Amino acid sequence: MPDVVYLGYMAAFCTTCSFVPQVLHILKTKDTRSISLGMYSIFVTGVFFWLVYGIIIKDAPIMVANVITLALSSTILIMKIRDIFRERKDQTATQSTTL
Amino acid sequence: MPDVVYLGYMAAFCTTCSFVPQVLHILKTKDTRSISLGMYSIFVTGVFFWLVYGIIIKDAPIMVANVITLALSSTILIMKIRDIFRERKDQTATQSTTL
Repeated sequence: MPDVVYLGYMAAFCTTCSFVPQVLHILKTKDTRSISLGMYSIFVTGVFFWLVYGIIIKDAPIMVANVITLALSSTILIMKIRDIFRERKDQTATQSTTL
Repeated sequence: MPDVVYLGYMAAFCTTCSFVPQVLHILKTKDTRSISLGMYSIFVTGVFFWLVYGIIIKDAPIMVANVITLALSSTILIMKIRDIFRERKDQTATQSTTL
């Protein structure tokens, strides 16, 4: 494996590691209120593009970094979307009982 | 420019864009309390490694994405370190007056 690939893996390790605590915090507290749906959607799309880019140019560090980040960030995005639907359902239920 | 490079720039645009509002918020409020020094140091190091990696493998989207992210994230890291030093200075000043 050429030396530059090790550098890529070090980069991947650092940027993925620094993302993990935030993800674990959200998974633990199940609180997605501080997450912006718009920003997170753009981020997940970007990570998906990086992954496809890595696959096309056959770059292992880019693939590894983005497959992990995509798994983590899309989990949070799904939780956020689920919470939005739950809130709407609760609001509809409250409106029905007050009518 | 081959099509794959456009994909790389789209990826770079998305992941950088989703990072900008948080940076602007911190630059506007000058409040770095919610920033973890350890995690941000690891992130900035990782982005620096990605930039060097991009330069070595001569990949323009990786270079562009990481030079912008490095400029933004290192600004926040410097603000965070400056705030830590200020707090320590204030604490020392308070201790001197109470003695």
